Amino acid sequence: MSASIASNLTLKQILAPVAGDIEQIDDVLRSIGTVDYPLLQQGMEAIIAAGGKRLRPAILFLVAKFNRYDMERLLPMSAAIELLHTATLVHDDTIDRALMRRGLPTLNTFLDEGTTVLAGDYLFAKSAVLSTMGGVQRATRIFAEALVAICEGELEQKFSSKHLHTSRDRYYKRIYSKTAALFAAAAEIGAVLSDAPEDEVQSLRQYGRQIGMAFQVIDDILDMQATSQELGKPSGADLRQGTVTLPTMLYLASASESDHEAVRRLVEDEDRYDELADEIIAKIARSGALDEAHRVARQFADEAKAALVAFPDTPAHKSLLDLADFAVERSF
Amino acid sequence: MSASIASNLTLKQILAPVAGDIEQIDDVLRSIGTVDYPLLQQGMEAIIAAGGKRLRPAILFLVAKFNRYDMERLLPMSAAIELLHTATLVHDDTIDRALMRRGLPTLNTFLDEGTTVLAGDYLFAKSAVLSTMGGVQRATRIFAEALVAICEGELEQKFSSKHLHTSRDRYYKRIYSKTAALFAAAAEIGAVLSDAPEDEVQSLRQYGRQIGMAFQVIDDILDMQATSQELGKPSGADLRQGTVTLPTMLYLASASESDHEAVRRLVEDEDRYDELADEIIAKIARSGALDEAHRVARQFADEAKAALVAFPDTPAHKSLLDLADFAVERSF
Repeated sequence: MSASIASNLTLKQILAPVAGDIEQIDDVLRSIGTVDYPLLQQGMEAIIAAGGKRLRPAILFLVAKFNRYDMERLLPMSAAIELLHTATLVHDDTIDRALMRRGLPTLNTFLDEGTTVLAGDYLFAKSAVLSTMGGVQRATRIFAEALVAICEGELEQKFSSKHLHTSRDRYYKRIYSKTAALFAAAAEIGAVLSDAPEDEVQSLRQYGRQIGMAFQVIDDILDMQATSQELGKPSGADLRQGTVTLPTMLYLASASESDHEAVRRLVEDEDRYDELADEIIAKIARSGALDEAHRVARQFADEAKAALVAFPDTPAHKSLLDLADFAVERSF
Repeated sequence: MSASIASNLTLKQILAPVAGDIEQIDDVLRSIGTVDYPLLQQGMEAIIAAGGKRLRPAILFLVAKFNRYDMERLLPMSAAIELLHTATLVHDDTIDRALMRRGLPTLNTFLDEGTTVLAGDYLFAKSAVLSTMGGVQRATRIFAEALVAICEGELEQKFSSKHLHTSRDRYYKRIYSKTAALFAAAAEIGAVLSDAPEDEVQSLRQYGRQIGMAFQVIDDILDMQATSQELGKPSGADLRQGTVTLPTMLYLASASESDHEAVRRLVEDEDRYDELADEIIAKIARSGALDEAHRVARQFADEAKAALVAFPDTPAHKSLLDLADFAVERSF
């Protein structure tokens, strides 16, 4: 879909320059997760084991390689960012009453709702403590502001779901809050903690922001394609919940009146997993909308790469470029 | 109940040395509460208007009067503490599905549960940003650690409710987390932000901790006495939810076997608002347990005052002493 594909590289290969450092995050998270209550402990360990790609900490580390690389500063903050991400997922799952995430059972399956809310709060709190341990107040503030952006995005999604018409700007604003804000914060914090000059801080933040945008657009495409085996949820889960994302927006732009009406009925109605939904989602998947959305993601990735143009040609630099390609070429 | 009563002083009189500064917190909170969604905005404004006593910020300000009093440092942090307190109340109310607090409707009455969780998260996030605005990393860390303690206390309460036998130590640990941790943090932060010498920081933290303990013991007594007009909930709400507090513990220590059994049935059973509960709560209220609990609160207040013994005799000093008395003499 683009000339600049690095599709033969695995994520593990891309992140090789910081692989050892990323592993240390697990130890920090494991020590943080130690709590007095066996049931909760079990849940926390499951969350940590489930892992995820540790992309945000990876970006923080890679970005810091351009300047002064001090693990004592970087490690607590990268763990803070991963933990904050985890905490937001716990609350998301609570709010959505999701029972599965990444094919594994969520905390909801063995804790009641109130306890899950508290468990998420506890992770937020621990991440906030970690965020103060790098010793740089500006980094802590960037961290806290990313959390504000995430909450604003969640509220926006909550209040704007069940609405068929979403402007492109509004969609971008929403995915910035949902995903790109924390990627941008990870990159900016990596820059600040490595004492990067201010112009580099801004370029690296821009890199983080645009790769985050690319990631979320691809997530929204994958949501349309996913089967329940892959993501632990039916394809088109967002749309079934009344949330219109880019593929649906692009599909609607050239849909017939009756297809338009069908989507409206799905979005404005209650949650449903029925034939109407299956049919619409299959139509979107067959339409050109997914390719078109893919081109948008590629554009964000290219902008991320462009933000790095003035930086020296180092292994970390190459990793960051490859990561931008990976963001759009991945299928999981 | 004690010789050292300042019962003729109103809270307003006690807090006079910092009254103007406390008022400024409302402006900060109001600017923070500005959000795009009318329904949420309405809820936030109601929370801010409902106010509460602003005791934690008051302690932060009063304590800072002993050293360098710099409003630019103190104001964002005092607002952060009040907002954090508010956020914990929002999540408490969500978890308890409470519809009233301080006689006013909670967010639960007009937002669904997921949105209320998000609204609480949003307030947490905003408080975290405010906590970085004083420019002193140590203060931000104390703030974040207080949030961890609060979450641990909530989890402890969640996992230990429905258990009849609570040791005194466990009870103290729980009320420390629930209440005293944030009072202690407010005092310690006030000390740190005013560049107090380290020994003073520790004494002032001790003051905050002990006055917080006194406050919570009194809250637990008031909970036993309250009628629904006063607190917006039936008397003995804690016990009805299966949470054993000091008055019940003291009552049980000299209760007959059959009274003991009655309390066990109430605690271990589901929530109920019935004749058994009414009868037990009336018995506890008539027993000497409330007076005995009052003596415990008085002891904490006296320890708070003792922590201030080496400080100069200033109006702020007098306020802090009077506040300790107020903590135990108040009836609301």
